[in-house]
Amino acid sequence: MRIELVNTGTELLLGDTINTNAAWMGQRLAALGLEVMRQTIVPDGRAVLEGLQEAAQRADVVLVTGGLGPTNDDVSRECAAELYGLPLELSAEVMDALEAYFGKRGKLVNEATRRQAMVPRGAVVLPNPVGTAPGLHLASELGRERGYGAHVFLLPGPPRELKPMMENLVEPALLKLLPESAPRSVIYLKATGMGESDIVDRIQAGLEAMSGLEMGYCLGKGDVDIRLSGPVDLVNAGAQFVRAQMGDFILSEDRKILEEVVVELLQERGEWVATAESCTGGLLVNRLTDVSGASRVLAEGYITYSNAAKTKLLGVPIDVIDANGAVSEPVVRAMAEGCLRASGADHALAVTGVAGPTGGTLDKPVGTVWLGIASKGVETEVRRLYFPGARDRFKLLTSQAAFEMLRRRLRGIAFEPPIP
Amino acid sequence: MRIELVNTGTELLLGDTINTNAAWMGQRLAALGLEVMRQTIVPDGRAVLEGLQEAAQRADVVLVTGGLGPTNDDVSRECAAELYGLPLELSAEVMDALEAYFGKRGKLVNEATRRQAMVPRGAVVLPNPVGTAPGLHLASELGRERGYGAHVFLLPGPPRELKPMMENLVEPALLKLLPESAPRSVIYLKATGMGESDIVDRIQAGLEAMSGLEMGYCLGKGDVDIRLSGPVDLVNAGAQFVRAQMGDFILSEDRKILEEVVVELLQERGEWVATAESCTGGLLVNRLTDVSGASRVLAEGYITYSNAAKTKLLGVPIDVIDANGAVSEPVVRAMAEGCLRASGADHALAVTGVAGPTGGTLDKPVGTVWLGIASKGVETEVRRLYFPGARDRFKLLTSQAAFEMLRRRLRGIAFEPPIP
Repeated sequence: MRIELVNTGTELLLGDTINTNAAWMGQRLAALGLEVMRQTIVPDGRAVLEGLQEAAQRADVVLVTGGLGPTNDDVSRECAAELYGLPLELSAEVMDALEAYFGKRGKLVNEATRRQAMVPRGAVVLPNPVGTAPGLHLASELGRERGYGAHVFLLPGPPRELKPMMENLVEPALLKLLPESAPRSVIYLKATGMGESDIVDRIQAGLEAMSGLEMGYCLGKGDVDIRLSGPVDLVNAGAQFVRAQMGDFILSEDRKILEEVVVELLQERGEWVATAESCTGGLLVNRLTDVSGASRVLAEGYITYSNAAKTKLLGVPIDVIDANGAVSEPVVRAMAEGCLRASGADHALAVTGVAGPTGGTLDKPVGTVWLGIASKGVETEVRRLYFPGARDRFKLLTSQAAFEMLRRRLRGIAFEPPIP
Repeated sequence: MRIELVNTGTELLLGDTINTNAAWMGQRLAALGLEVMRQTIVPDGRAVLEGLQEAAQRADVVLVTGGLGPTNDDVSRECAAELYGLPLELSAEVMDALEAYFGKRGKLVNEATRRQAMVPRGAVVLPNPVGTAPGLHLASELGRERGYGAHVFLLPGPPRELKPMMENLVEPALLKLLPESAPRSVIYLKATGMGESDIVDRIQAGLEAMSGLEMGYCLGKGDVDIRLSGPVDLVNAGAQFVRAQMGDFILSEDRKILEEVVVELLQERGEWVATAESCTGGLLVNRLTDVSGASRVLAEGYITYSNAAKTKLLGVPIDVIDANGAVSEPVVRAMAEGCLRASGADHALAVTGVAGPTGGTLDKPVGTVWLGIASKGVETEVRRLYFPGARDRFKLLTSQAAFEMLRRRLRGIAFEPPIP
């Protein structure tokens, strides 16, 4: 089934609104095993007819968003009717819904809004319970006379109106248009500590050999979602293969991100963590506290940028800093152990590095970082890693590696330095 | 000038990546008074040629993003060369840049990456200082023989590579292609502490009266960019009007965001700040340390989620917490003053509130927050604010209000609670 999206709206071309509808619709369709061939944004007005015409020539299904409002530049209804040569007729069904909608708000349906009750003859109305503009489905038969064979769906632009209509009405209609097939499913496996290209190296060929299985990769912040979709049995087999190949690099299978997994693991064990940050400057603790329930696992967070703060708050001996530099193995070890002591937590994460853009040396170029984890009754572990690049990227990757040290310690598995 | 965008990438159609490039480019072009006629997403592979061909027939300028990578499905270079009938030649200039890029990372240029050094004969190379794929500009003359007259720009897909190339190389090239006209300018006035609709109420009618002036609003994280573009004199008059209407709500005129302005103000005065955070859990200090040079103004950051930490690290008397609750005027005052004392900084910001989704009471519903600022030799100031909504939004707006208290204190102007 060849599907095209036509998103209408001058605000999208001006960049005043980001076209999140296209990505959301793409994801929904991909989960059904359907693929979007092309997506186009056209401005409000007559350009809609041109965009719609081209798409209807190429595709089996055209999903149009926007242009169903009450104002003069909302012309999707008119353009679709014109393309298929259908008269517009006032729909009693839609008028009733509009009167009910406005009545609830103590208003009468005004003249402009009446336009929304005009329906191309033969089109199916898709009721909109959360807004005034109904959707419309022009079945492919309606276009035959003019030489078109595409199903055209006209859908509202605002995401809160579009989403329920898509899920409840459009997707079932599309599935009915598909030939009978086996039940389908979709599984997301989230990996961290390994870059996309290495993941591809490990799993792509094996998955491609499973004919009928669809896969995709979605880059997150420091993680990669591996998406498998297709017939249920095949998806399960694919997931088993990915688990075997990726091992402990698989972080979650419910789309939970690293800090959520870490908070959950700590909650399960009733344990507390504290953080001592230099170069990440609060990103670690900020990510933790983005998770609801963090207050039950986060003891304290120390941001110790200066050497004086490292000494005063964490008890790092000043002569250790003087002898080795602030970005060094002995200092990160002292930070982690000092943080554990000062906070009374069960685990303490420490980071010290050169975020840049300035401050690098030949020995310790920008991007160099030392990470440490100290835990009650367990040996302290420290690592030197290297994340060259922009400051925000450095902070993100460093925080990801630190959480990964903690996750692996909580799960009782050895830390693997990230494979870039 | 008719401009079209062609964004390539199957991940965009699958919805794995939201096409933020299109909106960003639309905004940049709008600021130059240029309008995008159409935007299209095509999947990786041969569909790029089709999309490029159609756009090149309609437009004067086609901006293509993506498809410049090292893998087999990156075919933008090949498609553009094929469309204009140009041979691909190895560019010594690009090879040098690739060797330098990989050399810095201790790697050799591999075979796949060599593809990125292939340039259609006659195309201008647009160097990429932050990535491996250079951009390319195929001037309209190169397509004449095949009957095309469009300038084609091939640009990298990753936003951090695309943005500097667009700003530094593509926009100047587009301005050169425009017919001589009255000198244009663009001014961004960034406002904070006031919601978009209130800004519109204050300035929209006045700006609309200035015929020929173009304006737009761009919502940032806790701020709003007011964009004025058009003939220089008109833009200057518009900016003067906005300054008069918005007063101290204008944060910057160089797109600097609040934490950048605050760090700069502190640097100018040679002063230090420390933070004591409960509900924002490190966002304040994390935002500060996102600014290069923060190490010269940030003394210490304390994340004191628990009552025990507030007492131990900031010296907040436990009976004050018991008597008033952790989210209260006396506690935030004690946190700010305790943080000032403990850190030895010149200014201390403190926040304590109910981020939610749980923990709210009738008296102190989710979204309630107390903010405080203590400074050496100045009276401590505290405020109760209310930001109902999601947890991340609460944290953002709270951190914004806290920085705004600091900014106004540093500038010697009274704090105004944000107008939602």
